[in-house]
Amino acid sequence: MAILYRAGCQLFCTFIVFAGLFLVPSTSLPYARRVIGLNNHALPSDSSSSVQYDVKYFTQTLDHFSFTPQSYVTFQQKYLINSKHWGGASSNSPIFIYTGNEGYIEWFTQNTGFMFDIAPQFKALLVFIEHRYYGESMPFGSQDVAYSNATTMGYLSSSQALADFAILITDLKKNLTAEDSPVVVFGGSYGGMLAAWFRLKYPHIAIGALASSAPILAFDYIVNPDGFDNIVSNDFRSESENCYNVIKKSWKILEEMSSTPSGRKSLKESFRLCKDSDVDGVEGWLSGAYFEAAETDYPTPANFIQNLPAYPVKQMCKAIDNPSSEKNILSQLYGAANIYYNYTGNLSCFDLGFGDPHGESGWGFQYCTEMVMPMGDDPIESMFPGYTFNYTETMQGCAYANGIEPRPHWITTEFGGHNIKRVLKRFGSNIIFFNGLRDPWSNGGVLEDINESIVAIIAKEGAHHVDLRFATMDDPKWLIQVRKKEIGIIKRWIMQYYKDLHTT
Amino acid sequence: MAILYRAGCQLFCTFIVFAGLFLVPSTSLPYARRVIGLNNHALPSDSSSSVQYDVKYFTQTLDHFSFTPQSYVTFQQKYLINSKHWGGASSNSPIFIYTGNEGYIEWFTQNTGFMFDIAPQFKALLVFIEHRYYGESMPFGSQDVAYSNATTMGYLSSSQALADFAILITDLKKNLTAEDSPVVVFGGSYGGMLAAWFRLKYPHIAIGALASSAPILAFDYIVNPDGFDNIVSNDFRSESENCYNVIKKSWKILEEMSSTPSGRKSLKESFRLCKDSDVDGVEGWLSGAYFEAAETDYPTPANFIQNLPAYPVKQMCKAIDNPSSEKNILSQLYGAANIYYNYTGNLSCFDLGFGDPHGESGWGFQYCTEMVMPMGDDPIESMFPGYTFNYTETMQGCAYANGIEPRPHWITTEFGGHNIKRVLKRFGSNIIFFNGLRDPWSNGGVLEDINESIVAIIAKEGAHHVDLRFATMDDPKWLIQVRKKEIGIIKRWIMQYYKDLHTT
Repeated sequence: MAILYRAGCQLFCTFIVFAGLFLVPSTSLPYARRVIGLNNHALPSDSSSSVQYDVKYFTQTLDHFSFTPQSYVTFQQKYLINSKHWGGASSNSPIFIYTGNEGYIEWFTQNTGFMFDIAPQFKALLVFIEHRYYGESMPFGSQDVAYSNATTMGYLSSSQALADFAILITDLKKNLTAEDSPVVVFGGSYGGMLAAWFRLKYPHIAIGALASSAPILAFDYIVNPDGFDNIVSNDFRSESENCYNVIKKSWKILEEMSSTPSGRKSLKESFRLCKDSDVDGVEGWLSGAYFEAAETDYPTPANFIQNLPAYPVKQMCKAIDNPSSEKNILSQLYGAANIYYNYTGNLSCFDLGFGDPHGESGWGFQYCTEMVMPMGDDPIESMFPGYTFNYTETMQGCAYANGIEPRPHWITTEFGGHNIKRVLKRFGSNIIFFNGLRDPWSNGGVLEDINESIVAIIAKEGAHHVDLRFATMDDPKWLIQVRKKEIGIIKRWIMQYYKDLHTT
Repeated sequence: MAILYRAGCQLFCTFIVFAGLFLVPSTSLPYARRVIGLNNHALPSDSSSSVQYDVKYFTQTLDHFSFTPQSYVTFQQKYLINSKHWGGASSNSPIFIYTGNEGYIEWFTQNTGFMFDIAPQFKALLVFIEHRYYGESMPFGSQDVAYSNATTMGYLSSSQALADFAILITDLKKNLTAEDSPVVVFGGSYGGMLAAWFRLKYPHIAIGALASSAPILAFDYIVNPDGFDNIVSNDFRSESENCYNVIKKSWKILEEMSSTPSGRKSLKESFRLCKDSDVDGVEGWLSGAYFEAAETDYPTPANFIQNLPAYPVKQMCKAIDNPSSEKNILSQLYGAANIYYNYTGNLSCFDLGFGDPHGESGWGFQYCTEMVMPMGDDPIESMFPGYTFNYTETMQGCAYANGIEPRPHWITTEFGGHNIKRVLKRFGSNIIFFNGLRDPWSNGGVLEDINESIVAIIAKEGAHHVDLRFATMDDPKWLIQVRKKEIGIIKRWIMQYYKDLHTT
């Protein structure tokens, strides 16, 4: 039986593993976000009147940690800056930095309204820095060249990205004569990991970090690899036991149908797939919808990964539980998928081809080098078909290009993670780890306070970095409280900083 | 007038700058330790019965921070291990690591007797790790190949070295099933910088660091660039005002003599130089002797850089103050130099050619890439002729090979340093910064407590990492007290760790 597997793509990338091998495009290196890409995603736009910024570019060095001739190659790193509310350098007003993750920086900027919302009260300068090898911040002139082989792609790494941030921020502060302005870093998801690591590795540059939905413990078996999909499953189960059961039993049916011509015809028609070959991607397409709906199970309508109603998991389960389709599992599943992938109702058929509307395709390389996150399915507890993660298979699946092999223990060696409570109990300060427990990524999050200023904020109703989204009139009380708490903590960091500034 | 200048070689490398340009061998990349190299240095030996170890090699990755095909190249990293007193993994007995610096690891091991002295009371495993590109730990098979150009040499960097340590230690602990054994890192000079940075960057691997004579503030004008030579000058002045004055007035005389054939002849004869061309190196040779004598002004006889009597600065000043030679400045200076360079009396003449008995020649590359330490001379306060450091000259002097340019702000960007007290006051723990105030490198050291567990230990009579040397019967009280204090602090770290281990 085919093994269905959702790998460690930070936000939502989906892979299908058959017989332990990633089904990856054989001709191109990056293969992130395979299967679930659709063509109806809106490209980043800055139509929102709240999201205003100037676009800037910084001449960045390719390799900070070596001194080979190649390391001196430079590229243009994009960043967005909003100084509307900044109190200025003369008053040492704060600088809030978003440590960009795997995609267009505009996309993350638009989905980090929290920083815009709080800028006025902090008189903060806002800066959103794009991560190297994503969006426009492409070494070697273009994505085609940068992604063409491991010799050019190989400088895509979290350590290089953190050093990029360090250098850009230091230079920016100097240019603004704002050396004494406190910097607070913000990030969600992989960007949240970067924010937390940035505070730990560069305490001389950032006085604190808000690391939202940052699964820094998702590596090296620190947490249960099956926990991610268990959370997805429990999200659906929390809406309805029937919903969970229908999905759980569907995999076998889908698998059997996809093995016969008549079954494939039926799958194509039932799911309104555009092409015959899309049938091979149905399992990944559906599991992607479940995973991402759980991830983005926001309490208000949102257009982050997809344009979705409030509480999409509830809506999908409603479709599955719909009495009019209950005798036909395919139409139940279709109903759920249609909510996730076609809430606006614009699509006449689903094209499961590779699409990359948010500029994330470099993540495949990161996943296959350093971001090796063990993730499997528990066949009993989860609604997924069951898969035991193992490194060997992952390595086999990854070692497809130029002999580049995963370094599965690198992240924990470089950034820690094992016994984090003991390690950081007496080391480090000023990090907020926010996690929403409906978010599968919370499985890899820091869920307990580590010391008095490295703290965990938990929202059991929360989804993937929901705290970082723009406030809306419909926000539930718990979300208002979370943000209030975060604001209070950041204020204390800054006040403490000013006090220290004047006494040391 | 020629500008005499002693650049940032960590232990004792000396450069001469004429008209602002380094006088470097034009044919080879590494040029550290120019001028002062002599051929009478003993090669590392392990004759001391107290210094026993097994020699091991670890397969290390060339580039930890990138994922190019080249980054996967491996090399053999040497380390020395002594398990004689180790209490073993079952009792989580500690592991003491020396983070090797720029030279043969045997050399540092022999000069870090403190670790051997305290191993029994801590039941500690001792491990001394050689730094990449030094000694035997040479990528690309040999020093000739590794040092041949910047494409192979470029992976020599402090960040790569720290990651080497992290990976080796993690692997070693795993192989010993000693994952819960606390690791304390020790280092002197550049090795002390690495120890301190290792604790800051890898708190999940080392519970604490003894950073001895680690000039982590020697970068980016954090401290007065002239302070190093002022300390040397004050050391000599503290022995005798005449000694200081003779040296101070000597430079002009030497300069004038070296510009005429008869003067050169006289210099060659007076200093017993082997070759005519050695005359060009006399100023660097003498200033090297003053700098290094101040650095190694130990209270007991020692053979670290040179075989020297106790308090060599005092002995050199005695030679200068010697009434029998007081009418002849050249014979005064010769007397001092002869004590420093020929205390054993074995040399019939001085060969000022390039020698590298301790395997440090890679430092020139480090100095010219990341370890750019501003150092000059104050013409009033110091006994040196006066030189105002500037980056432009340094860069011109360094940009001689393959377009490799210095990154003078990199160290402070990556590791901090500016406002260190404010930055680390509420961040980080468990570092001892030892400095002896007679050591010129103490100018770049941390001389004040930063928080309750990042502490400074100062010995006003102390020289370069004197605390790390073997205890002797003749050690002065202050030195005994320093070591006692260090032992007490390290004990507290370990006890705290065990307590945390059992409660978290």
